[in-house]
Formats: sequence, structure tokens, C-alpha cells
Amino acid sequence: MPRPKPLSGFPEFLPAGRIVENRVLDVVRTTFELHGFAPIETRAVEPLDQLARKGEIEKEIYVVRRLHAEAGDADELGLHFDLTVPFARYVLENSGHLAFPFRRYQIQKVWRGERPQEGRYREFTQADIDIVGQGALAAHHDVEIPLVALDVFETLRRDLGLPPVSLRVNNRKLSEGFYRGLGIEDPAAVLQRVDKYDKIGPDAVVELLTGELGLTAAQARACVELAGIATEDESVVDRVRALGVQHELLDQGLDELAGLMRVAGRQAPGRVVADLRIARGLDYYTGTVYETFLVGSEKLGSVASGGRYDSLASDGKVTFPGVGYSFGITRILAPLIGRGRLVASRSVPSAVLVAVDDEESRERAIAVAGALRARGIAVEVAPKADKFGRQIRYAERRGIPFVWFGAGYDDSVKDIRSGDQQPASPDTWEPPAADLVPVVGPAD
Amino acid sequence: MPRPKPLSGFPEFLPAGRIVENRVLDVVRTTFELHGFAPIETRAVEPLDQLARKGEIEKEIYVVRRLHAEAGDADELGLHFDLTVPFARYVLENSGHLAFPFRRYQIQKVWRGERPQEGRYREFTQADIDIVGQGALAAHHDVEIPLVALDVFETLRRDLGLPPVSLRVNNRKLSEGFYRGLGIEDPAAVLQRVDKYDKIGPDAVVELLTGELGLTAAQARACVELAGIATEDESVVDRVRALGVQHELLDQGLDELAGLMRVAGRQAPGRVVADLRIARGLDYYTGTVYETFLVGSEKLGSVASGGRYDSLASDGKVTFPGVGYSFGITRILAPLIGRGRLVASRSVPSAVLVAVDDEESRERAIAVAGALRARGIAVEVAPKADKFGRQIRYAERRGIPFVWFGAGYDDSVKDIRSGDQQPASPDTWEPPAADLVPVVGPAD
Repeated sequence: MPRPKPLSGFPEFLPAGRIVENRVLDVVRTTFELHGFAPIETRAVEPLDQLARKGEIEKEIYVVRRLHAEAGDADELGLHFDLTVPFARYVLENSGHLAFPFRRYQIQKVWRGERPQEGRYREFTQADIDIVGQGALAAHHDVEIPLVALDVFETLRRDLGLPPVSLRVNNRKLSEGFYRGLGIEDPAAVLQRVDKYDKIGPDAVVELLTGELGLTAAQARACVELAGIATEDESVVDRVRALGVQHELLDQGLDELAGLMRVAGRQAPGRVVADLRIARGLDYYTGTVYETFLVGSEKLGSVASGGRYDSLASDGKVTFPGVGYSFGITRILAPLIGRGRLVASRSVPSAVLVAVDDEESRERAIAVAGALRARGIAVEVAPKADKFGRQIRYAERRGIPFVWFGAGYDDSVKDIRSGDQQPASPDTWEPPAADLVPVVGPAD
Repeated sequence: MPRPKPLSGFPEFLPAGRIVENRVLDVVRTTFELHGFAPIETRAVEPLDQLARKGEIEKEIYVVRRLHAEAGDADELGLHFDLTVPFARYVLENSGHLAFPFRRYQIQKVWRGERPQEGRYREFTQADIDIVGQGALAAHHDVEIPLVALDVFETLRRDLGLPPVSLRVNNRKLSEGFYRGLGIEDPAAVLQRVDKYDKIGPDAVVELLTGELGLTAAQARACVELAGIATEDESVVDRVRALGVQHELLDQGLDELAGLMRVAGRQAPGRVVADLRIARGLDYYTGTVYETFLVGSEKLGSVASGGRYDSLASDGKVTFPGVGYSFGITRILAPLIGRGRLVASRSVPSAVLVAVDDEESRERAIAVAGALRARGIAVEVAPKADKFGRQIRYAERRGIPFVWFGAGYDDSVKDIRSGDQQPASPDTWEPPAADLVPVVGPAD
């Protein structure tokens, strides 16, 4: 078999990269759990008709069928392209067994048959949190969710050296109310064009709005002025009011956004920006929306986003509204790991290599390794009885910091970085805390 | 949308079940890492022609294609049905970047289009370890691998109350050498029939061997006698020798098995059985083979198995031999969790619910929750300002053991199981260690 080539759009890491990814996922999961989110995992497939309900994404679905499928086999299946469709199905299927409001997290692969390109993958990992109510869900959860997201990113920055983020919020009711207050009848069409603000600039957006949608110059100009507002505090309200537009839905949106900015300003000062350009494309959000950018890598686009939706699912009698945030783990990590900007100090978990003098003494090395492992120290035993220099080079190649010599008869441990060697007992010796597991952080 | 029904063969758990599964996976992963295995994760898909190379399994493959695939699209893909085929491809693809012997673990979903039945799933989680050499791999790794497996299962038993296991080993060289020593020319055909020993009994196997393969009664009787040997120590060698068969391959197999039993007898006394009935079906193993049974659930079949193979992969110049063990996580857990035999003490991670007196004081509750989380305590804030009794019932329904009252002005914490309530500071209070995270164990 010739050397296989990678499949475009299906990223894989070398072991050191996977060590980095696992550490990041541990932080994400631990932070979700500290905030009381319960774990679920759903199957990779959903009935194709459920996946294809959202027309927009239809072309991206991967269909799954048995190689020797027979006539009369069950309906076709597809790989899920996000974690929201399976979560909605899970909530409906299990609603009788869940306690609402239901707080869940879910960290899984998703698949999209898109053309692979920079920052776009065919298989990637998402980490989602949602809070879902039965019938209703209080507005304060719109404030809670971005604070969880900030906690995740702040822990990743503090513990693993990931870049800081800029979290930006808007409110669909605000935009829609503003447009309606201007007398515009198709707010979605406006939103779609305002979404291009960053790419094409305000003047081009005005042209689209007047040319394609027939807005007056004054209407178009007001829409663009609204999109230009960004503040780090509640002053967003005065800025919008200064544009002189009135609508009930606008008032609602402004109230919700002001509430969020007020609490965020106290709980996480300067970390949240009210940015009225944020639109979240054609998604199903109905109120607050969030986007998150890595400072210095804004061109990657939003790496984590979410919002409030009025109806995750409905069984005909009860509707399940919610608010959630989805973290693009692969989107964040593939560039950082791939370009060597985020690294692990070694490619193996082992903190210690136990040297073997000769094959007859291998069992003594196994016993020493067992005693160290019993105290939580990751150890491997040298695969080959060999000269000490060779055993040290074996450890060096993997980044293992310590080599244990004289197992079971003259125990000592050498820090191969400093060369320092000390007598040691397998029942009491411990590596420095910083060497216990691979250190993950920015290169140099 | 009407209430969806589960898909047969695609098991999913409620949150409390997923908490159990996560805890088990944490033990598995931690134990693998303590033994120096490095993590990798491979994509879910492989080129279909690579998956279909093993004719036997062809009918079980799930094919994956884009819903709107076009002529000229890349070759068809399939979901991997085990972690060995992708690992072999990964080793070939990355051999220049890996240090050999390469020790890796991999915990992922796999998919098989089999007819779902008790203990058989279409989507399930496997956890694999392998040690792979470049050109050669020392025999002592055949002894190491089952000791890792025993460590995994012993930790699961001790920490989470899973059933103990019986680990059974055999050696393909031993069986093949024995058959050849008897003058039998097609050892594989014999192995295939001896594999039915447990199902149909020794006499029926003798009939198959004489009737279908034309063995003499003496030959057939010797094969069945060999299959009947099971010992907890090296006496397996004398038992085989007593059958009076001679062959060089038999000697090799006996040597390897004796070496394994000798070390296992000292490192894990009474935990490994040499069981010459173990065959591992038509797998690619070439030497030592392992199977593992849950004591009391033997009818589930082997829940973890593996062995030595001469060639995981080959690039034409170099061959990569290895030895590995694969743990059927879903196979072990789906019955234990599904039947309520292994449970979590609560359905959420939260140890504490911070009560909210009225919506105006919610921010004080948020601040208390933040202080507790900063010290690693999982907390949620009550979703609704409500009477104390209702907040306690909210916690009770989820199994949250503590409710925090008077957040920020008259802080106290109540153990809702005992009713005991004490003044507490969010900066110093800690729950008992046993309440910090959900307790996972057998239902009593």
C-alpha cells in the first residue's frame, strides 16, 4: 500500500496536536459543568427528511446508507451538520424524562459536504451549550449564556495561552423593530444586505438597499447608521434613540440589549461589545445574537456564536424556546495547532521512562512503573534493554523529562534536561507539578 | 413534529447515563495515559476501497456521499467499522513523524450496518490501545498489553463498581503448531470449528472435524482436548505436552504463552487464564490473542479483545507489526446503564443551587455562583425567583445536594438531604468531597 494522502477538509493531528486539542476540550467541558450544564451525546445520523427541512443547507448533507442496502430498508439517514437539529429531536423524544429548564452541553463531530477551504472543514468538532424551557424561558438566560462563553475563553487564555476574544452582541428584535419603524416591510431582506457591511462597506450597502430593495436614500442611510453603532456599555440605547426611530419591537430589543450590557458591564467589565452589525445570517434566532472573534485572527470570522430562539422544537402542543452558544473547536484549533502556534511540551503523556538494564530485569522495571502509576504519574518502560545513552535519547525524542535508572536495586531518577540525577524511591518520588502532564501553551 | 422514535441500533443515554459513560471514559483514558499511550483521533471516513478490502465485513459498511454529489466527485467514502483500519492508514501516512515503537490510544465511535440485536449496535464507542513497531516489535509487549487491560478493568471495578472481569489468553502459533503436529493441513478450518466449542459442545465439534474435514477420530479428539485446557498458571505447558504432539510452531507458541503466564502470575496473580479455546474468529492475529468477559455477564461475549499481528500495515518496504487491545465501551455500558445497574447520583453536574429571592437580587446570586465556581464547585443559579420550598424541590428533582440561601447578604447553605443549614462564605465553603461531582456506582 503506497503512502496514503490526507483527505481535504478532514483535518487530523499528530499525537502532540491531539494532546493540545484534548486539553482544550477538557477546559471547555469542565467550564460547562461548573455552570451546571449536563452532558448528552446524540447519534451521528438523523433521518434525512429531518436534516433536509432547512432548505438552505441541503446541498451540504452527507447521506449514509448500507453498502448492500435492500429495497424496503428503513428511510435514508444523513450525518448531522450541526448539533442543534439532533438536540431538538432529543428534547422532543425525551421531554418526559428531562427537567426544564434543561441545561445541556454536547461536544461532537459534525459533517458538511462543503467545498473545503481555509477555515472550512467537512468534518469538525463543535461544542454547544443550550438552556431550553418548556413553553417559556426567562430573559435572564440571554445574559447568562455569554458569561459562560467568556468564562470558557478566559480560562483557555489564562491556562493554555489561547488568544483573547471579542464577544459581540446584537438583538434581532432591535434591528427588525428599527426597520419596521422606518416603514420597511421586509426586514429579513435588509438584514441580509446589512450583513455584507464588513465585506463591501457602508456605501455599497446603501446602494444595495436602494437599488435592490427600493428603499429611499434616507431609509438606507438610517439602516447603515444603525449597523455602524458599537459600544462597550449601555450607551448603545442613546445612540439608537438619537436616530429618532420609533417601534414597539425596537423598544423590546433595546430593553433586552441594555439589560445584557448592564449585567455584563459589572460581571465582565469591558469584555462584551454591543455591535449592531452582527446579524447571524439566515439563522433561526429571534432575539439576542452573539458572535465571538479571536483578537488578531478576526479574518477567521466568528469562532463561536449563538443566540435566542423562540422555538427549538414543538410537539404540536408544547413549544421549547431556548438560548445557546456553539463553539467551533476545530475552527479555533486547526489553524493554531497546524501552524505550530499552540504546542504541547511532549508528544506522549509519559513523565518518566524506566530504563531496563537487561531483559532479565524487565520485571523490576515493570514493578517500579506500577508503583509510580499508582500515584498518578504517567510512565513507560523502555522497550529495549540498551545502553543508558540510548535510553536517554529514546526519552529525548518524545520529550519525556525523566529517566529512572537502577529499577528495584539502586533506584535513581535523572532529569535529562538538566542532567541532575538523584536517588529516589518509587513509593515517594514525585516530578515537579509542571512536569506531571504535558504543558500546553503558545510556542516559545 | 410528532414525538420521534429511537433508531434501532443507535443507543443514546439520558443525561445521567451520559454522566456514567463520561466517568468510565475518563478512567479508561487516564489509565491509558498512565501507561504512556498517546492520544490520536482519526476522521470518521476512509476511502471505500480501503474499508472493503476485508471481504468478510463488506456487507456491514455504511457508504457516505454528498446529497448532491456530482459526476467526477472524489472517490466514495465509508464510515469506519473499527479503529484498526484507520489506525493502519494513519501510521502509514505519518510514519515519518512518529517515534517507534508507537504507543497510541484512540476512543471513538464506529459504525456497522449489522442487523441490530442484543449486544450488537450500528453505532458504538470503542477504545483501542496498540503498540506498533517499525520492522519488528519485541515479544514482551504481548505481556504488557493485557496488564494495561487489567489495570483499566480493576480501576473501573474499584472506583465505579463495574463487575470484575476474566481475562483469557491463547496463542495462534500454539494451536496452529499443534494441528500441524497432528498432520492437519488446514489449521484455519479446524480453528473455525473449534470456535463453536462453547455453543455446541466438544462431541459435536468432534463430529464436525471428522465429518466435514475428514480428520481421524484421534486427530479430532486431540483438537478438542487441546481446546478443553484452561489454567491459571504456567501448568498449561505440561497439560499440552501431555497430549504428546510435537511441532516447532507449537514450541514457539508455548514459550510465548508460558512467558505471559509467568509475568502475569506475579504482577496480577490469579487474574489471567490461559484458555486454549479462545480463537478470535477470523481476525488478523498471528500470535497471542486476548478475550475478556464480565463476570456474571458472560453471555454478552467478549467485551474487550485483541492480540498480536505481524503486519498492521506495510508500505512495500517496511512492515509495521503490533499488539493491541480493543474495549467495547458501548457493549459494556449500554446494558449496565440501560437496565439501571450502573447509575449516577444526580442528572446534573451541579453540587449547589443558588436560590434567588427576587429578580432584583439575581446579580448577587450570580456573584456567589462565580465565587464558588472559581474554586471548582459546579453551581447553577435558580432560574426563577420563587418560594424556598419550590427552589428546594427544583434541586431535589435534579439530585443537587445543596441549596444556597441569602446570596450576598445573609449567606447560608442547606444540605437538602439532612435539612442541616449553616452560615457559609462563598469564598471558603466547600461541599464534602463525595458531593463535589456526581457519584457513579452500582444501583443498590
